[in-house]
Amino acid sequence: MSMFKFKKVAIFGVGLIGGSIGAGLKLRKMAQEVVGVGRRLESLKRAAAVGAIDSYTVDPGEGFAEADLIILSAPVNAVLELLKTGLPFLGSKHCLITDACSTKAAVLKVAEDALSGNLSFVGGHPIAGSEQNGPESADANLFENRVTVLTPTPRTDPSDLKTVQAFWEGLGSRVFLLSPDEHDRVLATTSHIPHLLAVLATLTVKRLTVTNPEKFLGAGFRDVTRIAVGEPSIWQDVFLTNREYLLQNLAVLEKMLAEWKSALQAGDREYVRKALDEAKQFQKSLP
Amino acid sequence: MSMFKFKKVAIFGVGLIGGSIGAGLKLRKMAQEVVGVGRRLESLKRAAAVGAIDSYTVDPGEGFAEADLIILSAPVNAVLELLKTGLPFLGSKHCLITDACSTKAAVLKVAEDALSGNLSFVGGHPIAGSEQNGPESADANLFENRVTVLTPTPRTDPSDLKTVQAFWEGLGSRVFLLSPDEHDRVLATTSHIPHLLAVLATLTVKRLTVTNPEKFLGAGFRDVTRIAVGEPSIWQDVFLTNREYLLQNLAVLEKMLAEWKSALQAGDREYVRKALDEAKQFQKSLP
Repeated sequence: MSMFKFKKVAIFGVGLIGGSIGAGLKLRKMAQEVVGVGRRLESLKRAAAVGAIDSYTVDPGEGFAEADLIILSAPVNAVLELLKTGLPFLGSKHCLITDACSTKAAVLKVAEDALSGNLSFVGGHPIAGSEQNGPESADANLFENRVTVLTPTPRTDPSDLKTVQAFWEGLGSRVFLLSPDEHDRVLATTSHIPHLLAVLATLTVKRLTVTNPEKFLGAGFRDVTRIAVGEPSIWQDVFLTNREYLLQNLAVLEKMLAEWKSALQAGDREYVRKALDEAKQFQKSLP
Repeated sequence: MSMFKFKKVAIFGVGLIGGSIGAGLKLRKMAQEVVGVGRRLESLKRAAAVGAIDSYTVDPGEGFAEADLIILSAPVNAVLELLKTGLPFLGSKHCLITDACSTKAAVLKVAEDALSGNLSFVGGHPIAGSEQNGPESADANLFENRVTVLTPTPRTDPSDLKTVQAFWEGLGSRVFLLSPDEHDRVLATTSHIPHLLAVLATLTVKRLTVTNPEKFLGAGFRDVTRIAVGEPSIWQDVFLTNREYLLQNLAVLEKMLAEWKSALQAGDREYVRKALDEAKQFQKSLP
């Protein structure tokens, strides 16, 4: 894997994901130079301080110049904004761009609309987020044994797809391919709905009129709601750029809630037991 | 704490909670004898094998005879059943009974209806459950720094309440008092709704028509749904004996879901951001 090398990799957004990519590249000597690009000097300095990047700049033109790989790992809307306005910064050299956004259809649409000349884009999503954020949480081994989804389209260059796949495998990740649309459909269920439910479980307690509810929170509550501390600026974009599939999932959820309501009202032990058994069996079937 | 001793403690139900009580009593030498009482010989044997109890019997008459403390730590319906039918087994000696059930109003009602003569009942709920179950998960220190809620009523003997409080404090627990009704209202929100949401998040994935969804499950999904493997026979009783308050909470949840649906349909960034910020701040405010 150390044979697979980039000369200059530019990372736009150096939080948990971007910082971990930088740290991983440096640990594995996969890039000669890792440049952090961002909007806030403060974050870039902290990323450099923890060794996640070699150098940094708030000027995309400077940061992206001569890069042979650019990774966009900022929140979705910041990535969309950059794709719409920032690509003119890039020169005439062939440049491969990929991203790490949690939703893909919106990113791919804007990216492919913006592509021209020597630019090439491959969509990607490392499923490695957590409630942690900021460059201090960067971990060179974050992607080890995690899954990264790449989302090729008819316009994706097969050789660039292979390069990006090798890049993620070099960081220790397993790579699967889905279309951007299929990615968003699946992740709405496996990631976005759980996050929304964690938020709702938290807010249900907040709305409870009781003195010191924190006294009565068990480990279950902690588990279910832990990810609700996830960065609002990141999740706001995720929810809004995947709202079609989120709404489809909410419809499934509403149907189940209505069933539970009827079952509880009727004291239907069979329904409750069957649902609990089904959830337990499915959980246990997961690897 | 080792000055506080019982001669014979009988534990009805030797799973995670009952087994941990037995192990904790023995570790701290709080009881001269700990007898496990249950319906399944197999569980009792396993509890004895891991040292959670000294002896065992499937005969409540034998197990409860001469006990100065009886702890009912089986699923709610088994406890209700025992309270309705098993108390005649008890002799004329003063006997203090307490329980560890996750819902309290139903248990207190049945217990106090069944009380007579020298029997005394104090309701309790150690908030220490997890997705683990069975005597193998017994842990003598399970209750350390956990909260146990005791639920006195006008019929509760103040001196027996003090005894049960000292019992739980002896096991390392902090004790708070709530009325049975207030307990059920609070726990519906802090425990039962999170459990239901974990089940629903799991079932949403199960209902998704995608090949191998397990490939695309992140750490967030694991956290949110972990407790859905909790024992169905336990949770079935919890949900059904607390259905009034669960339904009240479901109404709050349905209202929030309806708001989210409108916000997503309208692309309302402000609503989404505000809800995420509110959940994050509340989470961070918890100790």
